[in-house]
Amino acid sequence: MMRRVQPAHPRRIARRVKRKRVAILGSTGSIGRQSLEVIAAQGHLEVCALAAGNNWRLLAEQARRFSVKLLAVAAPQSAKPLANEAPAGAHILSGPDAMTELVRTARADVLLSGVVGTAGLAPTLAAIECGSTLALANKETLVMAGAIVMPAARAAGVDVLPVDSEHSAIFQCLLAGRLDEVRRVVITASGGALRDWDEREVRSATVAEALNHPTWRMGRKITIDSATLVNKALEVVEARWLFDLAPEQIEVVGHAESIVHSYVEFCDGSVIAQMGPPDMTTPIAYALTWPRRARRDVPPLDLPALGPLTFWRLTDRFARAVALGYEALRRGGSAGAVLNAANEAAVEAFLGGRLAFGEIVPLVESIMNLPPPPAEVTLEALLAAEAWARLRVDEMVSHAAGTPRAGE
Amino acid sequence: MMRRVQPAHPRRIARRVKRKRVAILGSTGSIGRQSLEVIAAQGHLEVCALAAGNNWRLLAEQARRFSVKLLAVAAPQSAKPLANEAPAGAHILSGPDAMTELVRTARADVLLSGVVGTAGLAPTLAAIECGSTLALANKETLVMAGAIVMPAARAAGVDVLPVDSEHSAIFQCLLAGRLDEVRRVVITASGGALRDWDEREVRSATVAEALNHPTWRMGRKITIDSATLVNKALEVVEARWLFDLAPEQIEVVGHAESIVHSYVEFCDGSVIAQMGPPDMTTPIAYALTWPRRARRDVPPLDLPALGPLTFWRLTDRFARAVALGYEALRRGGSAGAVLNAANEAAVEAFLGGRLAFGEIVPLVESIMNLPPPPAEVTLEALLAAEAWARLRVDEMVSHAAGTPRAGE
Repeated sequence: MMRRVQPAHPRRIARRVKRKRVAILGSTGSIGRQSLEVIAAQGHLEVCALAAGNNWRLLAEQARRFSVKLLAVAAPQSAKPLANEAPAGAHILSGPDAMTELVRTARADVLLSGVVGTAGLAPTLAAIECGSTLALANKETLVMAGAIVMPAARAAGVDVLPVDSEHSAIFQCLLAGRLDEVRRVVITASGGALRDWDEREVRSATVAEALNHPTWRMGRKITIDSATLVNKALEVVEARWLFDLAPEQIEVVGHAESIVHSYVEFCDGSVIAQMGPPDMTTPIAYALTWPRRARRDVPPLDLPALGPLTFWRLTDRFARAVALGYEALRRGGSAGAVLNAANEAAVEAFLGGRLAFGEIVPLVESIMNLPPPPAEVTLEALLAAEAWARLRVDEMVSHAAGTPRAGE
Repeated sequence: MMRRVQPAHPRRIARRVKRKRVAILGSTGSIGRQSLEVIAAQGHLEVCALAAGNNWRLLAEQARRFSVKLLAVAAPQSAKPLANEAPAGAHILSGPDAMTELVRTARADVLLSGVVGTAGLAPTLAAIECGSTLALANKETLVMAGAIVMPAARAAGVDVLPVDSEHSAIFQCLLAGRLDEVRRVVITASGGALRDWDEREVRSATVAEALNHPTWRMGRKITIDSATLVNKALEVVEARWLFDLAPEQIEVVGHAESIVHSYVEFCDGSVIAQMGPPDMTTPIAYALTWPRRARRDVPPLDLPALGPLTFWRLTDRFARAVALGYEALRRGGSAGAVLNAANEAAVEAFLGGRLAFGEIVPLVESIMNLPPPPAEVTLEALLAAEAWARLRVDEMVSHAAGTPRAGE
């Protein structure tokens, strides 16, 4: 493999760690592609399995480049063309359970989950059973089922490492103290593509406008979540589960420049912040090389060149979106699953031209205010709650079709 | 003691740590007084010894308040009035070696050294012999004799904890990685009282003007050092010794607001910063309660209310002052002692009206450029180098008396 041919730098030899076998779910997506770039630059990481949705061409190319012989593709019709293009002897899985099967077969040291949405849940639970360290970019898994995933991981002694830039920041800042010394955790929010728009303009923002994020280049769904700030609602829930925090210990503050990725205030008044350019390869590398830090050829953070760092309290529109996260935590049970699924469905409706931008948050809010489905926290109940929420969104969107509501 | 009467909060009981006996050198100074406030608010810290220069009234008052029976005062004539006012049965030391004797007698768990200048060196070495953890606010000790103090501390297994806000920040940030993963350490500089003055105005700044620090309330000597930025030269040397860094790993960046106290960039490109209001009680508390963090009743850091955080590259005047620190490290031997003593004497001359503000840095520079005294690193050689540098400053100041030089 190409990445083994590295100069034998004495320092690298001195700190050589055991090779890590990494499996990547969603390898053809934004996080997956960046993860492979990180791995290509590191000597001790090896890709042992790759899974994608339906982009079999890119998946085959990745498999050849990294000599990966365990592949999964969700779309059944992609299995055959993938087999033709994949390295000789590759084992190819396909269908809805392919990712989970891939996880069980790979038994990787680290599973990096870069899939979007609730599709990441079953493979995540499988990875915990296999004892693979979890590098989670798939925040929906924790929003929906943090109450199942985290206790399972703890019971199995499996580390759950965040790949989200904000949660990676918090994870790093927490190293400067003990969990029982944390006073609060502050998640920063860029405000997304429509940050400075007024409330009226925002309501009818187009898909192209909402996708035009000023600092981060990310997938479509998360970029819309960033524009609505529902992303921060999801991150509040994610932080609660990842770090076992009380909801009142978690805050969200606006920070346009996306340099301070989040910060932690300890009980002695000391604040530790993690900073860096808006570049997902840093949290990805950290999750893959943890507890060590990779030597990476990235330019230093030039704060004087970056201009002032600004912070602002959330305006009403943003506070309303973020409140959904606290509400989900307050209600417990399946509320996280409902929040997540209603938001996913609403964003799909917006991206499909069936819902106005300004309707996304009110719609999610109204679904969360319906009499909730059963509150037991079992995987089945959560999946049922998810299906229920998606159905309600579809009903409401269809009902309102052609008659856009007046914001509110 | 009053501070024992605290409600038995369950969390406090759970995390109760062994009582720590703290000795404070320079208890009547700025750091000393703030340290006592920190201790008064914490249940598990006990003052076992106090030393001051000549402010026997305040020393006696502190001794009564904290029931301290081991006291030292440098000025011999202060011993008697101190004895009259101190708690009954107090043991009182006086004279030039009183602080060192106090350290040996106290055998404290933590010695907090808040004295200014090289007077802190001998007691620091005595504390290392006694195995007391060092909480060092006295940066001159390391600038002068880091090459002696740090190896001695390592050999004795004594922890050296910084109390300087910048070094406390670095110390906290370093917890997020390993020392061999540090790419660089960036010390922030407020720029002091004369930050925005032009080069001409600065030359003739008065004592009152130079003492008018915009963000920090500190002692006189350090406030002048902050206005010249020689403070940052000293801090570069201090950081080199405290954290065993190469000089080229240390940078200084301007930051007017004094909120980001310093930051560390790791080899993976991740930057960890420590923030807080400009308040010395935070680094003091951290050094006294390390490795735990104290629960302190301080308001949260409200970044949105603070306005933008700005960073700037050092201008020529500042870069020239900071270069003194790198030069001292490059030369090694007694150069740190010469830098420190020449600066102390020059600041005294300025505060005494015998030297223009704009002459401080050029004078220190010219002393450092003289053929240096012997370069062996022994305590005697360093003390001799210090005396030599002070003498040179006095000569030059006397020589120039009445005929101020034209900047340079």
